[in-house]
Amino acid sequence: MGIDLAVSTVIFAIRPASDPAERGILSIPLVRRTREPFAGRWSLPGGAADEAEGLADTAARKLYETTQLAPAYLEQLYAFGDTDRSWSGRVVSVVYWALVRAELAEQAAEGENVRWFPADELPELAFDHNRIVEYALWRLRNKLEYSRIAQAFLGETFTLTQLRHVHEIVRQVSLDPANFRRQIESSPAVVATDEVVSGGRHRPPRLYRYDTTVQLADNGPLG
Amino acid sequence: MGIDLAVSTVIFAIRPASDPAERGILSIPLVRRTREPFAGRWSLPGGAADEAEGLADTAARKLYETTQLAPAYLEQLYAFGDTDRSWSGRVVSVVYWALVRAELAEQAAEGENVRWFPADELPELAFDHNRIVEYALWRLRNKLEYSRIAQAFLGETFTLTQLRHVHEIVRQVSLDPANFRRQIESSPAVVATDEVVSGGRHRPPRLYRYDTTVQLADNGPLG
Repeated sequence: MGIDLAVSTVIFAIRPASDPAERGILSIPLVRRTREPFAGRWSLPGGAADEAEGLADTAARKLYETTQLAPAYLEQLYAFGDTDRSWSGRVVSVVYWALVRAELAEQAAEGENVRWFPADELPELAFDHNRIVEYALWRLRNKLEYSRIAQAFLGETFTLTQLRHVHEIVRQVSLDPANFRRQIESSPAVVATDEVVSGGRHRPPRLYRYDTTVQLADNGPLG
Repeated sequence: MGIDLAVSTVIFAIRPASDPAERGILSIPLVRRTREPFAGRWSLPGGAADEAEGLADTAARKLYETTQLAPAYLEQLYAFGDTDRSWSGRVVSVVYWALVRAELAEQAAEGENVRWFPADELPELAFDHNRIVEYALWRLRNKLEYSRIAQAFLGETFTLTQLRHVHEIVRQVSLDPANFRRQIESSPAVVATDEVVSGGRHRPPRLYRYDTTVQLADNGPLG
């Protein structure tokens, strides 16, 4: 018996809508369980903690095994340890949340047992994974407003329209473009570069960047 | 072998200084280790996770066993799981932080193997516990500025001077009383009551309260 320790990760990406005219969709990849309990249900990527590996390394490895991607951002979310969260013995799950880059997520393979779902329209998942995703969404939406993590969806440089779309898609709001521009331009965190979008448009939009690049993990003094 | 799961808690209280004319001191109780590794060193209260008990319940129970107090506030801090944090096998520690009320902490017993230390003047602790306390202090100081947790040090009603002293002691700053009063009175979170401090003073100070009482744990949608 004893307590089993698991590591799971809520992975977020902005994926294109099936209709190319529509905006992207905040999405998470799920893994179909092939064993009881909850055989056939979708669940968060993860597995048993590895005795020889740090918790964040296990989270990143499982993320790679599921999506063939490396995270642009990875942070511990919470350790879930209620006594009744699994029917087959006591399991404590240390859960991480991660952001991956949109254009890479487009290429990430799906298969019979791995599929991307809209983060706000999930089926009934195994264990307490719906509750875990809900908490991860809350953390992501809060953090988007007071940190630089939007960059993890975007890459090094981006247009203000691209940045606004990230906020609109993640926070599920519609933002006034002029207000958003004023707000960003008055913030010291985002700075204009000398570059514009290439491709020969008449008035190509300017590229911006964050003043400092986002940390891979942002855990205060734990760095 | 395998991975051992432990629960530890960083417990904060404001305790009186040895000189009664001095302000209180942000303090944490530590337990002296009686066994190797680190026999004789001071460490955070805690122990092995219990298979039949939720993690927060274990944290509260260990807190009670160490201090004979119930927490006014209890929140999960982080799961520490580096592979090299113990010399005797792999240990993952789910760490909580807690606040206990000042006047109760005054009465909390000390003994040969339990002692309260100033949070900013700790000896070299067992394991990675200095790093854990540093992170808990960072979380406490941040959270004091944007949440209602100061109340956990104070009780239901308090004077503005008492509230200012909590901020000064925890954040290690000196605040202008008139500015602090203006700032608090313009915040909707703290409201004046009809009561004043009893005891027959000529101009007894007014008592204030938070608009809503502080939650025992504040983990967003996890409740």
